Amino acid sequence: MADTVAASHQRGDEMVVVVSAMSGETNRLLALADEVNPDRSERETDVLLSTGEQVTIALLSMALQRRGVDARSYTGSQVRILTDNIHGRARILDIDSARVRGDLRQGRVVVVAGFQGVDAEGNITTLGRGGSDTTAVALAAALKADECRIYTDVDGVYSADPRIVPEARRLERITVEEMLELASLGAKVLQTRSVEFAGKFKVPLRVLSSFEPGPGTLITYEEDPMEQPLISGIAHNRDEAKLTIRGISDIPGVAYRILGPISDAHVNVDMIVQNVSADGTTDLTFTVHRNDYRKARQILDDIAAELGAAQVFGDDGIAKISVVGVGMRSHAGIASTMFRALSDERINIQMISTSEIKISVVVEDKYMELAVRALHKAFGWGEEAIQEKMPTAVA
Amino acid sequence: MADTVAASHQRGDEMVVVVSAMSGETNRLLALADEVNPDRSERETDVLLSTGEQVTIALLSMALQRRGVDARSYTGSQVRILTDNIHGRARILDIDSARVRGDLRQGRVVVVAGFQGVDAEGNITTLGRGGSDTTAVALAAALKADECRIYTDVDGVYSADPRIVPEARRLERITVEEMLELASLGAKVLQTRSVEFAGKFKVPLRVLSSFEPGPGTLITYEEDPMEQPLISGIAHNRDEAKLTIRGISDIPGVAYRILGPISDAHVNVDMIVQNVSADGTTDLTFTVHRNDYRKARQILDDIAAELGAAQVFGDDGIAKISVVGVGMRSHAGIASTMFRALSDERINIQMISTSEIKISVVVEDKYMELAVRALHKAFGWGEEAIQEKMPTAVA
Repeated sequence: MADTVAASHQRGDEMVVVVSAMSGETNRLLALADEVNPDRSERETDVLLSTGEQVTIALLSMALQRRGVDARSYTGSQVRILTDNIHGRARILDIDSARVRGDLRQGRVVVVAGFQGVDAEGNITTLGRGGSDTTAVALAAALKADECRIYTDVDGVYSADPRIVPEARRLERITVEEMLELASLGAKVLQTRSVEFAGKFKVPLRVLSSFEPGPGTLITYEEDPMEQPLISGIAHNRDEAKLTIRGISDIPGVAYRILGPISDAHVNVDMIVQNVSADGTTDLTFTVHRNDYRKARQILDDIAAELGAAQVFGDDGIAKISVVGVGMRSHAGIASTMFRALSDERINIQMISTSEIKISVVVEDKYMELAVRALHKAFGWGEEAIQEKMPTAVA
Repeated sequence: MADTVAASHQRGDEMVVVVSAMSGETNRLLALADEVNPDRSERETDVLLSTGEQVTIALLSMALQRRGVDARSYTGSQVRILTDNIHGRARILDIDSARVRGDLRQGRVVVVAGFQGVDAEGNITTLGRGGSDTTAVALAAALKADECRIYTDVDGVYSADPRIVPEARRLERITVEEMLELASLGAKVLQTRSVEFAGKFKVPLRVLSSFEPGPGTLITYEEDPMEQPLISGIAHNRDEAKLTIRGISDIPGVAYRILGPISDAHVNVDMIVQNVSADGTTDLTFTVHRNDYRKARQILDDIAAELGAAQVFGDDGIAKISVVGVGMRSHAGIASTMFRALSDERINIQMISTSEIKISVVVEDKYMELAVRALHKAFGWGEEAIQEKMPTAVA
């Protein structure tokens, strides 16, 4: 990173660099803490974990100094990145950018510890995992930066997972909304929270590889209808399981009586589909994370008994495939193209759920790769030149 | 430590605990820094090193919480321990004890990172090695604590090194001045700086073992003539070498012309003895650290040529033995007891140097152990009951 930053600085860029802890360091510190007291206060966990980034800001500053760059490090408290007092998952309330601006004016590169801040009483807080990206976006917003670059282990956002679709292509740009949909669908390039932040504060975000040169993908809040492709990406997800309750009275409040206890048990529900049948009863199907499948199934069995439901069944052998694109807003026929492509491959659709810029379907999980490839081709990417291979691949 | 602190807290003591980095951690971090940039800014070194204590304050607080003690940690910046801006060896200027007092009032144990502070601009500073003791003393002074306990790897200050004198006894109390003399003579129980600090701010200091129970030794600024023994301790030191320049004109400024260049070469001089001879020439003998012997010898040879001295000779096979005690102020005859004891053992005295509460002699180094034992006996400790054996021994 020091080489990359020094080169950019030599080209005249004013730069603030936000760093995470070294690989494995946060887990090492957590293991130490667990050994000492698994039931400790969150405040002390934050004091401990925040040392991880403090080590890297110092080391990166030293590495920059070695390359002739005047660099200076700041912890979250020093900047000062003011947060609320929810230790372990604090939210940034305000950033005082005066010191950082002062250093930039003097030609310095400023290195800031990500993932951490300070509450109004001066206690050290952390933003939770992935918080370094959030820090970078928040600082970019506070400084009105031209661009916030997020260096990751992938070289951009792809139209589909290149491990499944070899001809998947790197997107030059994608909208914040599309990125959010992709993230929520399991594409793990960036933390959802930092993308939301970028959208909210209109910070242009660029995802690049730490290991390979290249322009990456620009995540922008601006929509350019002329340049916008119909579909930006195809996401897939094998992490979910499906649960169905059948033959329940179709009366107001029944969905809440079913999903309330699920939510109370801290099980997140993703897709929900309800059909009305002719005889005054209804069916409800929803998906949960596969890890929560057994727990949700047990709760649902209890509810079924209470409600006198006809049947409960579940399936954890499913996959979710989604097509995402702001182009959907102005183009009809996307859903039918999708369904036809799946039908041509004889892939049965078990559930459908749509939003303004996304269509998701649930299929039997053995069809996942086939479905992704078929859709990638159906939306016109099949004939394009095969891009260079990726080190790690993400949709 | 958590067990010790929790027990003391249960007995009703209000406590602030100052901790160092874990064993080896500071060296590990320095090695990382050297790898990245041996010529880095001191500011960044301090940012890096200060994480060592930040880890331990969090872990100790967690360990106390596990023992049912409400504990809260503070970094040097958080307390706030204001220092000057000399990175790596900052001096404490002021301590804001408001937050600490607030926590104590609420029955909390406060855990503070030693060795570190913050300058007026909010930069992290470190006090240099051994700085954790200084932090503890400074906090004790700011809080007007009843006592500052320093936990070390020895269980107190001894009348002589128990490795040499098996019947050496642990002192119940010693004055700050005596302790400073012992420290300057090579007894390494505590950093000189923290003892000076304790004396300056009249903080009663107690040295105890981290590993064994016991009252340790109280280092006090109060002199109690009734209880004061004649001699508090016998120190020894094999780290020095002796240099003599003979037959130089006894004119004003000659000592400066000899010792000035030595000092300019950053060689510390310890003992200095000058004799006047009948023929208008003089001899000057001084001691330096053994590591500086060659360097000092070379400088002295050059000076001798300039001054037309008769002879230069040196000896790095020497040992220094000192008896220390505030009792000397009011008792005559200590020097003669010392010289007689050495004479009885046929140990030749090469140099003598005295201060108000100390007499030091230089002898051939093979006599060191014998000299220490003879003196220990001569000052009346010989017949006392043999104390329990020590894990590590210090005079």
